[in-house]
Amino acid sequence: MAATPVWSVDPRTGKQREQVAVEATPQDVDRAVRAAHATREALADRGARIAFLRTAAALLDEAAGAVVEAADAETALGPGRLTGELARTGYQLRAFADAVEEGTYLDIRIDRADPALTPPRPELRRYKIPLGVVAVYAASNFPLAFSVPGGDTASALAAGCPVVVKAHPDHPATSELCASLLRRAAERSGLPADVVAVVHGFDAGLELIRHPLVSAAGFTGSIRGGRALFDAAAARPVPIPFHGELGSLNPVVVTEAAAAERAEEIGAGLAGSVALGVGQFCVKPGLVLVPEGAGGDRLTGALAKGLGETEPGVLLDHRMRENFVAGVRERTALPGVAAPVTPGAGGEHTVGAGFLTVSARSLVEEPERYEVLLEECFGPVTVVARYADPQEAGAVLERLSGNLSATLQVSAAEGEGAPGPAAELIGTVTALAGRVVVNGWPTGVAVAPAQHHGGPYPAATSHSTSVGGTAIERWLRPVAYQSVPEALLPPELREANPLGLPRRVTP
Amino acid sequence: MAATPVWSVDPRTGKQREQVAVEATPQDVDRAVRAAHATREALADRGARIAFLRTAAALLDEAAGAVVEAADAETALGPGRLTGELARTGYQLRAFADAVEEGTYLDIRIDRADPALTPPRPELRRYKIPLGVVAVYAASNFPLAFSVPGGDTASALAAGCPVVVKAHPDHPATSELCASLLRRAAERSGLPADVVAVVHGFDAGLELIRHPLVSAAGFTGSIRGGRALFDAAAARPVPIPFHGELGSLNPVVVTEAAAAERAEEIGAGLAGSVALGVGQFCVKPGLVLVPEGAGGDRLTGALAKGLGETEPGVLLDHRMRENFVAGVRERTALPGVAAPVTPGAGGEHTVGAGFLTVSARSLVEEPERYEVLLEECFGPVTVVARYADPQEAGAVLERLSGNLSATLQVSAAEGEGAPGPAAELIGTVTALAGRVVVNGWPTGVAVAPAQHHGGPYPAATSHSTSVGGTAIERWLRPVAYQSVPEALLPPELREANPLGLPRRVTP
Repeated sequence: MAATPVWSVDPRTGKQREQVAVEATPQDVDRAVRAAHATREALADRGARIAFLRTAAALLDEAAGAVVEAADAETALGPGRLTGELARTGYQLRAFADAVEEGTYLDIRIDRADPALTPPRPELRRYKIPLGVVAVYAASNFPLAFSVPGGDTASALAAGCPVVVKAHPDHPATSELCASLLRRAAERSGLPADVVAVVHGFDAGLELIRHPLVSAAGFTGSIRGGRALFDAAAARPVPIPFHGELGSLNPVVVTEAAAAERAEEIGAGLAGSVALGVGQFCVKPGLVLVPEGAGGDRLTGALAKGLGETEPGVLLDHRMRENFVAGVRERTALPGVAAPVTPGAGGEHTVGAGFLTVSARSLVEEPERYEVLLEECFGPVTVVARYADPQEAGAVLERLSGNLSATLQVSAAEGEGAPGPAAELIGTVTALAGRVVVNGWPTGVAVAPAQHHGGPYPAATSHSTSVGGTAIERWLRPVAYQSVPEALLPPELREANPLGLPRRVTP
Repeated sequence: MAATPVWSVDPRTGKQREQVAVEATPQDVDRAVRAAHATREALADRGARIAFLRTAAALLDEAAGAVVEAADAETALGPGRLTGELARTGYQLRAFADAVEEGTYLDIRIDRADPALTPPRPELRRYKIPLGVVAVYAASNFPLAFSVPGGDTASALAAGCPVVVKAHPDHPATSELCASLLRRAAERSGLPADVVAVVHGFDAGLELIRHPLVSAAGFTGSIRGGRALFDAAAARPVPIPFHGELGSLNPVVVTEAAAAERAEEIGAGLAGSVALGVGQFCVKPGLVLVPEGAGGDRLTGALAKGLGETEPGVLLDHRMRENFVAGVRERTALPGVAAPVTPGAGGEHTVGAGFLTVSARSLVEEPERYEVLLEECFGPVTVVARYADPQEAGAVLERLSGNLSATLQVSAAEGEGAPGPAAELIGTVTALAGRVVVNGWPTGVAVAPAQHHGGPYPAATSHSTSVGGTAIERWLRPVAYQSVPEALLPPELREANPLGLPRRVTP
């Protein structure tokens, strides 16, 4: 059987640019996983791992021109955005190197023996060890920061887990380029190149999740694709954790007082957040609850102005463009749905940004008919639901699935604790989301120790985060050593603490 | 349709003692879950939760006589063991109350805003919130510490999650009694009684895991039952975490030097660990790798003496007794398997302890034929595999599934780092288990901050622990607040830190 070619495609024209690779056969996947598995011992070297992550960041910086050019040619995201994404990618790699050096992520706990307790307590020393080979499924919309050199890869390598990335078909050339840089960085740091590898192809992705030596997976993508892989991970003879980020509506609620106070600012800010990156962020606000009345009218006016002035943009691929156009058409066809700025087909290869409006009452009273308005539509569109009172807004929120983010726009007085719906809304949206934003926008997910990028299903398939300091926790499991003599303990747990790691000691 | 009665049965006679309850219908389960769900807001009161856990421990202590009597009548575990288990149960409840008071489990992280970073960092404040109603599946072998008032329940309540327990059919009367004490403790602490409820029946257990308002589950039991529930949890429209402890062989490796040095001590200690509680501990050593030769012979001699002198005991129920007798018969029938002390049917209602021997070579060379010897056999039996050299012992270990524990018996010199197989064995068994014990026995799982009672599948279906301080982490999910004004933050995250909680701050 002939190998299936993998093409790099220019989304600005829909034309094939070059053949980059071939799809991995089951044998290829097996080889990649076994080769990765064989590097676990080398990767256990903490110093080499730290050097590797920092060298990877440096090599990506050095190759910035080529990386941004390759990514732009395949994704049309533009050099500005991609340069920023590359900086974020390098920052992530360095932040995880710092985390390995610092050591809190090992969550070391030491209990001294206490024979006086019931039952008596022996000496216990606990830390966390890497799980083994991690499968990473790259995202379409972040060819760098959520793909081959992205957060899943960086955090897994930092944890000591070799990685096999299933590349996204939207940017195979970028994936190959980044993989070669990471592999070079490994070798320069004294590690085998096979600590990270890339495979292409849909079937290869399924082979990967079923491979007995794969011990966990990270995924960023669609609900349909992510759920299929989640199901496969759970159905294995030995199930493995599947950390998937699947989909999110990212509701925004504007209080009446906020609309009265800052209608134009909120409308303009919303337009910017919806249209950013041609609406291709997983935290794009997809549903905005805006009060009826004059303040809300001014807000939608500003939103119309902002989105109306937005230049058409190129989506990541033509299938997405078709889905976007069809998704907008389906929503616009619903009775009572208006499109003050019609999103949809721009030129032959572009789409225009826009928004739809509907009454919140429709969403509450005819939930089945309007269900699709509460589902993510990938691309530069949002749905503005006008509500009559806070109870109606609350009733819409109650119908939502889990989200990566939820945003409140409140007035200055509400922010200072003035009576109003804001306090109750905070509680309502906390139950819905992994991150709650007040008077800001959900797009722009900072890489930071306290970040949480996850949330109730389908935002995420687990309670972990894929961005920020605690993302490393996904690839580790605890182990406790009971009454183990100093000479047989791993260095991390020795009484002498030769690595100077932080530990919690129970006397 | 008539309700299905739930009987309390005396395992010492096999006779029904009394009808305790009826099996829960789907409507009953729905009612219990909804009632529990409605208590979430009340349970969010930290002070009430702490008082509740401590009061629960106090009421169990007060009722100790009745509780131990009820449990002994249904389980035949004996007043001594059950008194100890009750002490452990109270200690657990109090330890989780202390953990709530102390607050580290909230894992609070605060990042100050930093506009100079790329991308700029907004202020982020992260902590953990309770998931919602937790389903707890009680264990047969711990009617208290892993059942209604046990570790899963205590840690879930401490996290702020209401609990619905599916009682184990081996001790329904104990379950009802403990539930009534917990519910009374709730009311005395100003909480609704429905923060915890009990349901009976196999079908009720399935209803429970599928209920849309159930958000996580804890389970201790068999591989077959646990896997069925794990699969149901993963197959839900909204999958939920399922923390199951399913089965474990708990291998022990005795080095040649250890056998030469302490053969009699090790043999006697092993006999005690195997026979403890009539072999009904999930950490009972089920496979022991003993060197060929004189030291090993002395060890098995001491083991034979210890187990030969063990009085027959009563298993938890008659089905277990049948499974044990059948399991021993199947293993003993294999070629080359000897039974120096034959375990199996004692009197009409009892079983005797014993052990089997086999060559490690058989396990390595004919793995399929001898597969059953590497599977858990619940009851007072262990398999001693005699090995020719450390490589052969390692080859047996490589064939094992995941375990709750792995134990090494090493010599004094090996413990001090003398050359020998011990250092490599530590690495090998760490990969296999959640807890590694040296020169001790795995039975007796201390309730302690650094404890880990879990391990690779099938020891556990997740990488969490069901015993010890970090067991509470199973019932929480992180949420991050971005740029949220002080007045709208939960008290745990306010800058003023009114609750005095520990936090990690990034300047």
